[in-house]
Amino acid sequence: MLTIRDATIADAALIRRLIGELATFEKEPDAVRTTAADIARDGFGASPQFRTIIAEWDGAPAGFALFFDYYSTWRGAGLYLEDLYVCPDYRGRGIGSALLARVARAAEQERRSFVKWSVLDWNQSAIEMYKAHGAEFLDEWRTALLSGDGLRRLTEKDC
Amino acid sequence: MLTIRDATIADAALIRRLIGELATFEKEPDAVRTTAADIARDGFGASPQFRTIIAEWDGAPAGFALFFDYYSTWRGAGLYLEDLYVCPDYRGRGIGSALLARVARAAEQERRSFVKWSVLDWNQSAIEMYKAHGAEFLDEWRTALLSGDGLRRLTEKDC
Repeated sequence: MLTIRDATIADAALIRRLIGELATFEKEPDAVRTTAADIARDGFGASPQFRTIIAEWDGAPAGFALFFDYYSTWRGAGLYLEDLYVCPDYRGRGIGSALLARVARAAEQERRSFVKWSVLDWNQSAIEMYKAHGAEFLDEWRTALLSGDGLRRLTEKDC
Repeated sequence: MLTIRDATIADAALIRRLIGELATFEKEPDAVRTTAADIARDGFGASPQFRTIIAEWDGAPAGFALFFDYYSTWRGAGLYLEDLYVCPDYRGRGIGSALLARVARAAEQERRSFVKWSVLDWNQSAIEMYKAHGAEFLDEWRTALLSGDGLRRLTEKDC
């Protein structure tokens, strides 16, 4: 049976393990630079930078969702769903939809008018599930990222 | 001459006007549902949900950037740049790069390792400027949004 609960700091190592599993599924197993200690500090410290919910099936970890506040100058306050993951052994039981529904309810309770997230373009089963729930895809937008040397070089230009 | 300063609540109406100008440039003039009062409350109230910097040329408003905290489970803490805009009369003077550099410096000062943002796929001059600064484009990711009736329907599924 499925239960969904809020994560606590005692879940930091579990969350980090699930983040790693998701990155492997996304074909980027070496992309995860955060540690369990980072997750404990950043998610469960004095000023939490994200919230996490854990799905359990008969008490065993089956997936998670990690999200945080987001602000759209068009729509106002919303939530950004950074990670949504269901462990392979537990797929096909509606756990992904249940996690998404819980995030949607958090948005509604906080009067946040949307949930936004990203999905890899080859992850067709996820895309179909999202479309079935009424998600729209903002395909005219490209996502840019500046980090590492590029970020440092630009910083030096600021006066 | 260019100056960049932090916005205050006295700038809320100006920020809302610039948000509207940017939406018009983005061919979505009716997409902006936030009001100046929303901007004042959400950006300059008890728990600000974003930060804004204003570019001025000889004291006149010339552009703005609006950003907030973001968390990547791969990279840790970063910033999300929701809006970057330079008024038409002031383009070609490096104001967009100066605003981006100021956001990059904010990231560095707060030990945030990246800045992330979105750009419309037809906005070639912006894309080229971002590439010149070393931004990478995460084109394998699609952005999904759930709002309105879809969000409400999903909320009702949560038990």
